[in-house]
Amino acid sequence: MNNALLKEMKERVFDANLALPKSGLVKLTWGNVSEINREAGLIVIKPSGIPYETMKVCDMVVTDLDGNLLENGLKPSSDLATHVELYRSFEKINSVVHTHSKNAVMWAQAGREIPAYGTTHADTFYGVVPCTRQLTVEEVTSAYEFETGRVIVETFHERKLDPVAVPGVLVNGHGPFTWGRNPQKAVENSIVLDEIAEMACMTELVNNIVHPIPQYLLDKHFFRKHGSNAYYGQL
Amino acid sequence: MNNALLKEMKERVFDANLALPKSGLVKLTWGNVSEINREAGLIVIKPSGIPYETMKVCDMVVTDLDGNLLENGLKPSSDLATHVELYRSFEKINSVVHTHSKNAVMWAQAGREIPAYGTTHADTFYGVVPCTRQLTVEEVTSAYEFETGRVIVETFHERKLDPVAVPGVLVNGHGPFTWGRNPQKAVENSIVLDEIAEMACMTELVNNIVHPIPQYLLDKHFFRKHGSNAYYGQL
Amino acid sequence: MNNALLKEMKERVFDANLALPKSGLVKLTWGNVSEINREAGLIVIKPSGIPYETMKVCDMVVTDLDGNLLENGLKPSSDLATHVELYRSFEKINSVVHTHSKNAVMWAQAGREIPAYGTTHADTFYGVVPCTRQLTVEEVTSAYEFETGRVIVETFHERKLDPVAVPGVLVNGHGPFTWGRNPQKAVENSIVLDEIAEMACMTELVNNIVHPIPQYLLDKHFFRKHGSNAYYGQL
Amino acid sequence: MNNALLKEMKERVFDANLALPKSGLVKLTWGNVSEINREAGLIVIKPSGIPYETMKVCDMVVTDLDGNLLENGLKPSSDLATHVELYRSFEKINSVVHTHSKNAVMWAQAGREIPAYGTTHADTFYGVVPCTRQLTVEEVTSAYEFETGRVIVETFHERKLDPVAVPGVLVNGHGPFTWGRNPQKAVENSIVLDEIAEMACMTELVNNIVHPIPQYLLDKHFFRKHGSNAYYGQL
Repeated sequence: MNNALLKEMKERVFDANLALPKSGLVKLTWGNVSEINREAGLIVIKPSGIPYETMKVCDMVVTDLDGNLLENGLKPSSDLATHVELYRSFEKINSVVHTHSKNAVMWAQAGREIPAYGTTHADTFYGVVPCTRQLTVEEVTSAYEFETGRVIVETFHERKLDPVAVPGVLVNGHGPFTWGRNPQKAVENSIVLDEIAEMACMTELVNNIVHPIPQYLLDKHFFRKHGSNAYYGQL
Repeated sequence: MNNALLKEMKERVFDANLALPKSGLVKLTWGNVSEINREAGLIVIKPSGIPYETMKVCDMVVTDLDGNLLENGLKPSSDLATHVELYRSFEKINSVVHTHSKNAVMWAQAGREIPAYGTTHADTFYGVVPCTRQLTVEEVTSAYEFETGRVIVETFHERKLDPVAVPGVLVNGHGPFTWGRNPQKAVENSIVLDEIAEMACMTELVNNIVHPIPQYLLDKHFFRKHGSNAYYGQL
Repeated sequence: MNNALLKEMKERVFDANLALPKSGLVKLTWGNVSEINREAGLIVIKPSGIPYETMKVCDMVVTDLDGNLLENGLKPSSDLATHVELYRSFEKINSVVHTHSKNAVMWAQAGREIPAYGTTHADTFYGVVPCTRQLTVEEVTSAYEFETGRVIVETFHERKLDPVAVPGVLVNGHGPFTWGRNPQKAVENSIVLDEIAEMACMTELVNNIVHPIPQYLLDKHFFRKHGSNAYYGQL
Repeated sequence: MNNALLKEMKERVFDANLALPKSGLVKLTWGNVSEINREAGLIVIKPSGIPYETMKVCDMVVTDLDGNLLENGLKPSSDLATHVELYRSFEKINSVVHTHSKNAVMWAQAGREIPAYGTTHADTFYGVVPCTRQLTVEEVTSAYEFETGRVIVETFHERKLDPVAVPGVLVNGHGPFTWGRNPQKAVENSIVLDEIAEMACMTELVNNIVHPIPQYLLDKHFFRKHGSNAYYGQL
């Protein structure tokens, strides 16, 4: 193992985990962030059930690409197997975030995908934020966290969604997972997801026959920020 | 009395009481936390109507297991008799918390139990959070705070609920009580209760025919965190 | 004028005004608090349109009991005439607070009184929080702020409400006024009013056929905290 | 260019941009503020996609009245063309603010104008806050940001609205723009717009057949604060 590289990964994962309570996305010990380095064969993830106030950089847990522990230390987040499965199937993502942020959870509990009602949504998510089907009793009682990852992947495959263009999902009856090219971006996507989840709920309150924005406006805003013709931000 | 033990109890109860306004669960002087030590025959509880800003550790009030004052000092919380009754009937709990946190109050005022709409709920509450019946005029005008405790116990007995598996309740037209094995845990349960109360309300806004999660998912999440097969957190 | 007495009044009024943005009840320069000393013939009130960040104790404006300025200085709050009318008619109150706190405003804009749905309400307001009728074109175009006070008084007289037992009101299409025996208490009543306004709205969301709590529970909670048989707080 | 004047413009624009996250109106890098000096032929605007935490006064971007860059430096906000079009058509405004504040966005996504339900609204907006029509595919795919400005101007012209009396608008499916005589005032108008957007939504929740306030009350409150007969604030 490259110690400098691992130290940097631990610091990024630590910072991203702390950003969750700071952003108001998680309470108590809920939520976890991981990062993968495929070349080095490493995943770094939050330890399970450690309070954010006392958590240290060195508490971050290191595993191989299958989730096997590579260091003696704390137990990894109980959601590790979900992260591993997402990394295995979504090859272009380098970080995964799980939270129980209240507005995203509300849609997950309602079992509904979030329609693209405006440009705030379109700036980050290219189309609806999908919601998985409910897990079966067999899936839940066998390898629950692994199957949670599998049903997310199934949802993206069946709907032919690109996880780079739709960097998040709602797990039915549970809550959101988001991802990105690095931990900071993956956390930002969790922030955006919770915000657009709240906006969408309130939009329906104010207009109960509202329609999603037209495809051309969705295209405009998404590609203003993403892809080779993006012109938002500094080059 | 063992002075060191009592001092520690007072500090824990003091810290837990201060955690209530810090967590946004209480305003003004609302809310109270107590702790019991059955072997030592002691209950420590917040004094009545003292502002959190000026409250000191030594202001905590000490009573015996029947709620009789054991020290000269401030008056105990007016809800003491409710705490005493809960300790008498729920033998495995060591701390009780009462708040008027707005989301839990909303369900209590609506007179509705909170359905288990997701895993955030299932991680802490094994099934619905029950709501008591309304107190009768006789109960309210005789020994109101004692009867509040009694109707909570009645609710758990009639529904055959285990207070360890369901660490909280809504008192009809009033608000929530939660409990736990220590003051910190009891406060955490108040935080969770308010959060899932808000999530449940918003879930129904987004989907007015939503169903609770299936029993097998409730089982999975609750027993992932509780009981002999729990695997969440560090051992 | 007694200088020491006046200085203390100004300090209390200043502190109470600053408590409004600190409590989240007002934004920008909205909101104002005043105090009356009937024996000394003095009213002290916030100046008009001064930012809270730069406001000083000496900026507080002093008037006689009819609202005539007694010192050279800043202009008083434009709502002064409402405060004067409330002091004239409600002889037992010594402080008035006006805010545009969002939850109380929502009910005022809806033109609805707030039903007593729970004990949080009953602890401070003995029955519904009334909402005035709409002001007429004559009232608005003549002496608007005076007439705002008059319609509040009319509302209490017509419904035979005691302003000590019901320490606040909603002005139709406008927002809340609260009062109390001193500025701190009057501000606390604004905090409570906004909190119960939010709780009541959410209660109706969760149960659209909810009823107010029974009279005996309203009596119990109000008189637990008020009047000669009160037993909440320290004596 | 006058260096002292430009430095002051940059400082005002910088401060106003920082006021957006501080007021809770924007998350991440969303939102932008600009100021125009017509005599000097200068516009100063926030750079595109720069985090508020690290942004410096010298990062502010300077353009001429057509939006052409006058200094080597960072790229301007991608919404610059909207600001330029608003300055061209609304001759009395000197600052423009764009946010994705959640309550204003909710009405924009719902495609509804905000009715004047109360005096909080009337104190700042003389009548409804209008919502534009949806942009056409041609408008979105050609010069999107310019056309966003055009549809705002079209909305004001068609409804014969005075941008000084109605200092903000909702762009359909997108979000709010506000303006004012200086950056501080334009930001305050964004704060007010988000607040009244939330109040209006909740007002309809509490009373689903609510009516706007009468014209005479709207007149009274608006002209109490604006125009030659205003008497709110210090002279």
